[in-house]
Amino acid sequence: MKNANTIVAQATPPGVGAIGVVRLSGQESIKIADKIFWGKKLAKQESHTLHFGLIKDGEEVIDEVLVSLFKNPNSFTGENSIEISAHGSPYVLQQIISLCIKNGARLATAGEFTQRAFMNGKLDLSQAESVADIIAAESKGQHELAIKQMRGGYSEQMESLRQELIDFTALIELELDFSEEDVEFADREKFFALITKTNGVIENLIQSFQYGNVLKNGVPVAIVGEPNVGKSTLLNALLNEEKAIVSDIAGTTRDFIEDELTIEGIAFRFVDTAGIRVTVDILESKGIERSFQKLKDASIVLYLADINKPHKEIAQDVKEIEFASEQDVIVLLNKSDQMDSNCSAYDVEEAVSVLTNFKALEISASTKRNLDKLKKLLVATIEKRKVQTDIQVSNARHLQALQTARESLQKVESGLKNNISGEFISIDARVALDALGSITGKITNEDVLSSVFSRFCIGK
Amino acid sequence: MKNANTIVAQATPPGVGAIGVVRLSGQESIKIADKIFWGKKLAKQESHTLHFGLIKDGEEVIDEVLVSLFKNPNSFTGENSIEISAHGSPYVLQQIISLCIKNGARLATAGEFTQRAFMNGKLDLSQAESVADIIAAESKGQHELAIKQMRGGYSEQMESLRQELIDFTALIELELDFSEEDVEFADREKFFALITKTNGVIENLIQSFQYGNVLKNGVPVAIVGEPNVGKSTLLNALLNEEKAIVSDIAGTTRDFIEDELTIEGIAFRFVDTAGIRVTVDILESKGIERSFQKLKDASIVLYLADINKPHKEIAQDVKEIEFASEQDVIVLLNKSDQMDSNCSAYDVEEAVSVLTNFKALEISASTKRNLDKLKKLLVATIEKRKVQTDIQVSNARHLQALQTARESLQKVESGLKNNISGEFISIDARVALDALGSITGKITNEDVLSSVFSRFCIGK
Repeated sequence: MKNANTIVAQATPPGVGAIGVVRLSGQESIKIADKIFWGKKLAKQESHTLHFGLIKDGEEVIDEVLVSLFKNPNSFTGENSIEISAHGSPYVLQQIISLCIKNGARLATAGEFTQRAFMNGKLDLSQAESVADIIAAESKGQHELAIKQMRGGYSEQMESLRQELIDFTALIELELDFSEEDVEFADREKFFALITKTNGVIENLIQSFQYGNVLKNGVPVAIVGEPNVGKSTLLNALLNEEKAIVSDIAGTTRDFIEDELTIEGIAFRFVDTAGIRVTVDILESKGIERSFQKLKDASIVLYLADINKPHKEIAQDVKEIEFASEQDVIVLLNKSDQMDSNCSAYDVEEAVSVLTNFKALEISASTKRNLDKLKKLLVATIEKRKVQTDIQVSNARHLQALQTARESLQKVESGLKNNISGEFISIDARVALDALGSITGKITNEDVLSSVFSRFCIGK
Repeated sequence: MKNANTIVAQATPPGVGAIGVVRLSGQESIKIADKIFWGKKLAKQESHTLHFGLIKDGEEVIDEVLVSLFKNPNSFTGENSIEISAHGSPYVLQQIISLCIKNGARLATAGEFTQRAFMNGKLDLSQAESVADIIAAESKGQHELAIKQMRGGYSEQMESLRQELIDFTALIELELDFSEEDVEFADREKFFALITKTNGVIENLIQSFQYGNVLKNGVPVAIVGEPNVGKSTLLNALLNEEKAIVSDIAGTTRDFIEDELTIEGIAFRFVDTAGIRVTVDILESKGIERSFQKLKDASIVLYLADINKPHKEIAQDVKEIEFASEQDVIVLLNKSDQMDSNCSAYDVEEAVSVLTNFKALEISASTKRNLDKLKKLLVATIEKRKVQTDIQVSNARHLQALQTARESLQKVESGLKNNISGEFISIDARVALDALGSITGKITNEDVLSSVFSRFCIGK
C-alpha cells in the first residue's frame, strides 16, 4: 500500500555544506523528476548515469544540479530512484523537496528507503539493521561489526542452518500424514546430530553477544574503590583531560562521570563512582548506593586500592564485594610513586599473587605509570571474550530470537531422545524456525518492522 | 602549482545522515579512486556514470558506496573528479578521506573546488561568488539574486560592455604608435556615445546595489519613537513571539532586539531601539545613543507615535529627527484601539496628510490592527527601489569596482570633450577596463582571489 507511492526526503545531514542530496524513490520518481528537471529527458536515459541541468519551478530557477538516475531494479530500494545533488543550502533543498511533493511525491518516513529495500528483497532484515549501525558507528570495532553484518555473512550462516532444519521438519511433518502406517521418513539419528550441531552454533552466537554488544555500545568500565584512593585522578589520566573534579578531600565525586575512550578500536565507557565506604553524609550515601548499581552494570571493574595498604587487607576488601559472574575485575594498586620507603620490602608481586582470581597491576594515576599496560590489559580482557565465530551478535533483538530458538531446540533434542511423537517435535521445531527466520526477516510481523525502521533517520 | 595536486574533502554537511559525499578533484583523482574502490575499473568507464562497489583499505571493508565519475573537462572543476557517496557516518567519511590522502590526495582548502572551476574557466569570478551566496541563501529574494548571478547574466552584460571599450581603447592606443602622423583611428563621436552609454549602465548597476544589497543581507528596519509608545509590542506582534520584554514602564528596552522576518520573499531585519528622550538614567542614555546609531544604519525607519498625541506635535517630532537622505520613513500612529473617545473628531487622515514627506499608517500593535497593511507597505517601499536593470548588484566588491570604473569613465568623457591627448584618455580607459574586468575575474590578483574563496566552506 505504502509502497505504491513515490517518496522524497533529504538524504544528507541538515545544515550548510557544499552539496546536499534529495532522494526520490518509487514508480513515479523518474516521471516526477522529469517535470522539474531541465536537461536531458531522464526517462530516456540509461540507469546509473549522471545528468547536469536546472531544477525549475515554472519559470523560476531553483538551482543547477546533478541528477543521478537509477532504474528499477538496479537501485538501493529496488525501485526507480533519483538523487538530486544540489548546492548544500537548506533553503534550496527545502524548495526542491516542496517541488517534488507538488508534483506527486510524498515525504518519506524514517527508514522508509531502507524498508523498501528490504521489502523488495535487496537486503534482509539483519542487513537493513546494520545500515543504521554503520551510520551510527563511531569506532573501528563498531564499524567492523556493522559492515560484516551488512555484507551478509550473518544472514548466510543463519539461512543455511535454517534450511537444513526446515528440510528435516518437513519430513517429520510428512510422517504425520502417514501416521497410521508408522513410517519414518526423517532419519532420527541424523536429525539429532543436526540439532546438536545447530545448538552449538546458536550457543556460540549467544555467547558472542556479550562481545558484540560491548563493541557496539562501548564496554562499560566502572572505577571503584575506597574514598580518596585516586579514582578521579585515574579517570582524568586515562582521558587526558580534567573531567572529574579532583581534590584531596575524600568523597569529592558524588555524581557519575562518564566518558568514552577508544583503545585499539574498542570504545570503553568509563564510569567514575563515588567511593564505597560507610558514611553518614546523606548525599554521599545516595552516591554510594548508585556506585553499587554502576558496579553491577559494568562489564569490567577497575578496583582501585592504595598500594601502601597491607595486601592481605586489599585481598579481603575485594573478596567482600559481590561481583557479577561475567565481570572481569582488575585490581589496580595505585600510588606506586608514593610507596612507603619504610616498606621497601613490600612485594607488589606478592600482593598481586594473593589475588589469584583477579588480574592485578601496580600503577600511579598521578604520574601515569603503567597506564599503557592498563590499556593493553583492558583490550586483552575484551579480546579474550571473543568467541570463535565469524559473526558477533550485537543486536538485542537477535539475541532474544536466538535464545528462543535455543530453548525450542533443546525441547526437540530431548523429545528425540525420549522418542516423543513427531507432532510435538514438529511444533517445537517450528518455533525455533520462526525465531531464526525473524532475524533475517524471512518471518516478520509489523511490530518488528516498525521497531527496526523507526531507528533510522528520514532520508535513509 | 596548487592546481597540480589532487584534492579531497567531505562535501556534505558534518553530522549524521543517510548519505555523505566525499569529493576528489585533480589529475590523479580517478587513479586514486581505483586504488581504493572495488568494483569496475573506473579509468575504463565513461564520464557521468555511477558505479556501485566497496571502498577497501587493504582487506578491510570501509563501506559499500556509489561512485560518480566525471572526466576532464566535463566536471564542476573542469578536472577529473570523483564523488563517493557513502553511508552518512562521520566515522566512515573520515576513513574514506584518510584513505584518499594515504593514496596521494591532499585535503582541500576552503573554496578550492570552486577556485579550480574558476581557474579552469568553468565559472567567472562573479559566478563563483554567487555559489557561496546560493549556499547561504535563506529567503526567496536572496536565492533569486544569487541564482541570477550564477546563471551568468551579469557576466555577459559586463563582458560585452568591456569588449566594446577594449576595442575603442585599442584604437586610441594604436593612434599613439602613429602619433607623429596625427591620425585618428578611433571615431571620437562614436567613442563618446559608447562612454555615455556605458556610464548609464554602470550608473544603473550602482543604483541597484542598495536594492541588491538589502535583498542579500536583509533590509534593516529600525523601530523608533518616544518611550512607552509600543515599540516592543509592535516588534513582538510582527514576529509573533515574545522576543522583547514588554512592560508598562517606560524605558524597558535597553538592548537592541533584532530579528528577521521574511515578507513576500524579502528578509527584513527589525531592530527595536530604546526610546528616544532626554534621560538621566546612564544605562538608558547609553541605549539612546545607540538608538540614534541604529536609526542611521537603517534602510527603513518605522517612527512610532501615539495616535492620541496632537498630530501637529507628531509632525514636529518627526521633523526634528535627522534622517539619512536615502532612508524611507513610515510614521505609525499606534494605539488606534485606545483612541480617546473625547476626540472622536480626531481625523487620522488629517494627521497623516500633515506628514507629506512620509508615508503614514494608523495601527494598533496590541490588537494587530493594520499590521497586514504595514507589511505590504514595507514590501512596496523596497520594491520601488528596484532599478530597471536585469541584474541587481549585491556584492560590495562589485560596487567598489563599478564606482572606480564610473570615476575613470567620467574622466574619459571629459577628456574627450576637451580634446585631451589620447595618451591620457587611454590611461583612464585602462583603469576602467581593469575595474570592470576584476568583477568577472578577467583581471585578478591574488588578494582578491583569496578573499573571494576564503568565504567558502571546505568541500566546495
